[in-house]
Amino acid sequence: MPASSPSSFPEGTLHVIPIDGIPEIRPGDDLGALIGNAITGAIGSLQDGDIVAVTQKVVSKAEGKLIDLRDVAPSTLAQRIATDWDKDARQVEVVLRESVRIVRMVRGLIIAQTKHGFICANAGVDASNVASDTVCLLTDDADASAEAIRQGLVSRFFGKSAGSSPLGVIVTDSFGRPWRSGIVNVAIGVAGMAPLADYRGQYDAAGYELRATVLAVADELASAAELVMHKLAARPVAVIRGFDAQTLGEPGTSRDLVMAEERNLFV
Amino acid sequence: MPASSPSSFPEGTLHVIPIDGIPEIRPGDDLGALIGNAITGAIGSLQDGDIVAVTQKVVSKAEGKLIDLRDVAPSTLAQRIATDWDKDARQVEVVLRESVRIVRMVRGLIIAQTKHGFICANAGVDASNVASDTVCLLTDDADASAEAIRQGLVSRFFGKSAGSSPLGVIVTDSFGRPWRSGIVNVAIGVAGMAPLADYRGQYDAAGYELRATVLAVADELASAAELVMHKLAARPVAVIRGFDAQTLGEPGTSRDLVMAEERNLFV
Repeated sequence: MPASSPSSFPEGTLHVIPIDGIPEIRPGDDLGALIGNAITGAIGSLQDGDIVAVTQKVVSKAEGKLIDLRDVAPSTLAQRIATDWDKDARQVEVVLRESVRIVRMVRGLIIAQTKHGFICANAGVDASNVASDTVCLLTDDADASAEAIRQGLVSRFFGKSAGSSPLGVIVTDSFGRPWRSGIVNVAIGVAGMAPLADYRGQYDAAGYELRATVLAVADELASAAELVMHKLAARPVAVIRGFDAQTLGEPGTSRDLVMAEERNLFV
Repeated sequence: MPASSPSSFPEGTLHVIPIDGIPEIRPGDDLGALIGNAITGAIGSLQDGDIVAVTQKVVSKAEGKLIDLRDVAPSTLAQRIATDWDKDARQVEVVLRESVRIVRMVRGLIIAQTKHGFICANAGVDASNVASDTVCLLTDDADASAEAIRQGLVSRFFGKSAGSSPLGVIVTDSFGRPWRSGIVNVAIGVAGMAPLADYRGQYDAAGYELRATVLAVADELASAAELVMHKLAARPVAVIRGFDAQTLGEPGTSRDLVMAEERNLFV
């Protein structure tokens, strides 16, 4: 058997599977059902331990978190920023409304803290992959969105209550980072799994106690999913198979990924 | 054929393959040859387009970037920090020596800029997975380290010059991030591939011009690799199969991932 045969992958291999067949999402759509249909078409079914990654864009669309810019009256500040930096004043106004704190405003770039505690460009307001004169907001509670999708998928593929099923769902978005170029996908909603792998107090192979090792595995899973999603192809769903999230302990939420205010050294 | 069969993965699936069989690395070891042996044992061979991820720990060990703390005389500042925060003064001294700038020093936590331009905890100095009384430094030029490993692997598995081979190698390390809990794997060395996917000027499915979309795919690949590496298992190598890095354009280096000084809003 040649090494190129898929069946030669060793145990522990992680598979990040692109799911095609998601239609254009509209407000009110049952996103869990549409994702379930696409999964059936692409790979037949889900397995215990799978993690389903979904971009926030389709979650926000299904939940109607879209703003028609023709209905937005920009404030004086929004107008000034837009004039100075060649931006759409209505879009700037929406960014300001979605912000609970402006962290930096430099050269027209707005880095803001959202009501969820996330710090990101434009408070998560995004004009890509939506109709013209429309912007998309972050969903109000992406953990609840992830849990709703999870319940739909568990019911469909496992035929049991969501509470007892080892299926994880994460809602992803692309965030910039201080100090490093480019954006990466992170998890802004989590259901059915712990978002952190906490190795503190355990010992490595050399006998050293790992005192500060907490891995943000939900963010790493989101990044892995992005590699098959592709910005231009508008492919909003991936299934990650082979990562045993159940060993991480009790399920958590995206709140676990937000650094506590008192630990934030970069206000 | 059941959905669980590996051969049912749809086109475009990314496979993140753990490579076991790397021995304990010692200074002077030919890391490329040892990784090649392990790849042969685990999956037979490499394929065009594969990306090999290697943790900086084994790169630094092979290059002898280890410091015996018994030879380190701590400065007055290092002694004071160590006393105040219950740390090893010799280890603090090494962190200070590896720093070109202290970005934050709070509650014993040192976030520093390294000579490479990276900003990370302890300037990358690490005491895990090494012998006691020893710390490991970041390698001097992880891009060159990645290229050396790449040349060894290309020669072994493709029998041609490295310049013409579509094989990528990234050296990875785990960095914390402002605002988000936990650490994630990022790329600190890159060879044979572009670390960024630049979509600027292209249009999405809805006809919107992507003005700010540059994805740090090398960091996302590093994060994907971490998911099969596991801190405790000391598994330092993974092969990522199915990501077509060659469509990204000319190969680059980890310098492309370091944000330019003038764009740094979080000094």
